[in-house]
Amino acid sequence: MSADQRREAVRRVLREEGEGARAFVVRSAANVRYLTGFTGDSTALVVTPDRLVAVSDGRYAEQLKRECPAEIEAWIRPLGQPLMAGLGEVLTRLTSGPVAFEAAHVTVAEWTQLQDAAPTRELRPVSGWVERGRMVKDADEVAAIRQAIAVAEQAFVAVRRWLASHPDAREKELADELEFAMRRLGSSEPPFPPIVAAGPNAALPHYRPGHDRAIPEAGFLLVDWGATVAGYRNDLTRMIVPRPVPERFAHVYRSVQEAQRQAIEAIRPGQTSGQINRVARAALEAVGLADLFQHSLGHGLGLEIHELPFLGREPEVRLEPGMILTIEPGVYQPGWGGIRIEDDVLVTENGAERLTSLPRDLEASRLDVG
Amino acid sequence: MSADQRREAVRRVLREEGEGARAFVVRSAANVRYLTGFTGDSTALVVTPDRLVAVSDGRYAEQLKRECPAEIEAWIRPLGQPLMAGLGEVLTRLTSGPVAFEAAHVTVAEWTQLQDAAPTRELRPVSGWVERGRMVKDADEVAAIRQAIAVAEQAFVAVRRWLASHPDAREKELADELEFAMRRLGSSEPPFPPIVAAGPNAALPHYRPGHDRAIPEAGFLLVDWGATVAGYRNDLTRMIVPRPVPERFAHVYRSVQEAQRQAIEAIRPGQTSGQINRVARAALEAVGLADLFQHSLGHGLGLEIHELPFLGREPEVRLEPGMILTIEPGVYQPGWGGIRIEDDVLVTENGAERLTSLPRDLEASRLDVG
Repeated sequence: MSADQRREAVRRVLREEGEGARAFVVRSAANVRYLTGFTGDSTALVVTPDRLVAVSDGRYAEQLKRECPAEIEAWIRPLGQPLMAGLGEVLTRLTSGPVAFEAAHVTVAEWTQLQDAAPTRELRPVSGWVERGRMVKDADEVAAIRQAIAVAEQAFVAVRRWLASHPDAREKELADELEFAMRRLGSSEPPFPPIVAAGPNAALPHYRPGHDRAIPEAGFLLVDWGATVAGYRNDLTRMIVPRPVPERFAHVYRSVQEAQRQAIEAIRPGQTSGQINRVARAALEAVGLADLFQHSLGHGLGLEIHELPFLGREPEVRLEPGMILTIEPGVYQPGWGGIRIEDDVLVTENGAERLTSLPRDLEASRLDVG
Repeated sequence: MSADQRREAVRRVLREEGEGARAFVVRSAANVRYLTGFTGDSTALVVTPDRLVAVSDGRYAEQLKRECPAEIEAWIRPLGQPLMAGLGEVLTRLTSGPVAFEAAHVTVAEWTQLQDAAPTRELRPVSGWVERGRMVKDADEVAAIRQAIAVAEQAFVAVRRWLASHPDAREKELADELEFAMRRLGSSEPPFPPIVAAGPNAALPHYRPGHDRAIPEAGFLLVDWGATVAGYRNDLTRMIVPRPVPERFAHVYRSVQEAQRQAIEAIRPGQTSGQINRVARAALEAVGLADLFQHSLGHGLGLEIHELPFLGREPEVRLEPGMILTIEPGVYQPGWGGIRIEDDVLVTENGAERLTSLPRDLEASRLDVG
């Protein structure tokens, strides 16, 4: 969808509300960007049947002009006026009737402030008006995510080589090298802090890299990282293990790999997010490891690193061509460590395309140090 | 305050509520960290007169044990249970009476979910119970911010030298070098995306570095950056200008510098956040530049990059020893550019200590390229 079509899609939802809502407030920065191209924050978009007003402040007056199409009007709040007060003023002056707003992106404090600033407006919490449209990516979005993946993969290959010649490197050093490599290759920012977790640290799915050696004696390394290109993110996890491969590692690794394979094979339009999650879980159940898989299977990605649909969490979503998902089963055992394998896949007309190309078999995880 | 004292301070607020609130839900990740030491997310803390319960999920079970003192009980939600459902269960089982929650950190959607999950509890929005305590930093916090400043300053000096020998560098390249230098010096992550804005781009206070030359012909460069050490952030802005210094640049620079000097000189306990803002604004008014100063003067910093107090925004706060503030007047003119000078200062018993030591006079801003 072009940006025009995105805005039209939101207006269609608004029209369907009839008298229930005559205007819609977009508060999520990612949703504002999706609809307008504006990359800043502290800005809300008011959508009415015939106007689009970005309520912002003086820091962004110039940037709004640069980034948004002419049909987006900028309403720059006077200095010192809080966003909700400015928004309330715009709603009172430019709209009539009830106003829908993004319940998932407006805090209770903001809601109160907005109601005080627009006492004549009925404010109605709604959900997913923009996010549902964002689930299916258009060609430009898929291209941006492919680019982010290419950046992340090239950086990983380079840093893996660096690690082989720096066997004493610490987790944090490796994370820093990886970050810098991605930036030099075109990433604008990390979509999330990279996870570089050695041995037992890998039992913490969201570990932050510290000063432990990246390659501990007889241990292994989990790396979970991503790049951002043109606002679009990717998310990958690979394991690195020195020779010889410990026996338990090999067993768990192959089990996680098999769970991932089965899940990806099950993906096709019409299947639900929950079904795919259950396929991976059943595969780990079959080898007695399901109890150590303590998170959901994956999530959509795009302008945000975690988007609809969530595989294994509410709401249950029917897959459609154009959705891009992470598939990331993991097995974690306190004191021992954890193994996760994560790829990004595109739902196609009749199945799934793995967008990531880094090899993921056990042999490819081995690092020859020296 | 030790972490014990921080928790006790919050309990004191809770006790003062009497029958108005018998438990308190902390939802902000920074507030949870401040009270418990836990560095993850997706976790809420329930404070009652005699219990402290972290409601989290399986990804964080191990990390909570590692990071929190024994008195924090972990309540790990079953897989697939949303945070608000788990929180509702804890509130229903472990508390009685009304429950206060952080209105600024709970979305309207979460509030609805929580009310559904704890229908027998009256949920009462409150504000600032933890943030007010966070305004005054203890010795460890001041030490962490000093360290973050040292990292940011050393990195800037190194990258400034790099720029002198890379006169063709692009904005983004300089930002990447700066980021990497800070990480190698001990920063865990950027507290915000660094701003590197050349010439007219500097008219956008929140510009994101692109592919323009960092040092355009006869132009100048604005750099706004910071480091994070032990969770604590800093925030600095410096200008870089090649010789010869354009006349208008010199005039505006000295005016901004003078506004900053007067504002810092005005800081002392008992003054209000608004008064300090007005001092800087009056200084720019005196030279006819106040209309081009389109943001507030500064903000507190700590575990978050923007914290209470805000200088020039509500709520008006009376300054106390131990507060750490940015003082960052700026003048922006579309088509020409912008000049901002930003330092971090500590409110002391009888004035202010400038924590940043990078020189800030016009002479020090000059870059000899070659």
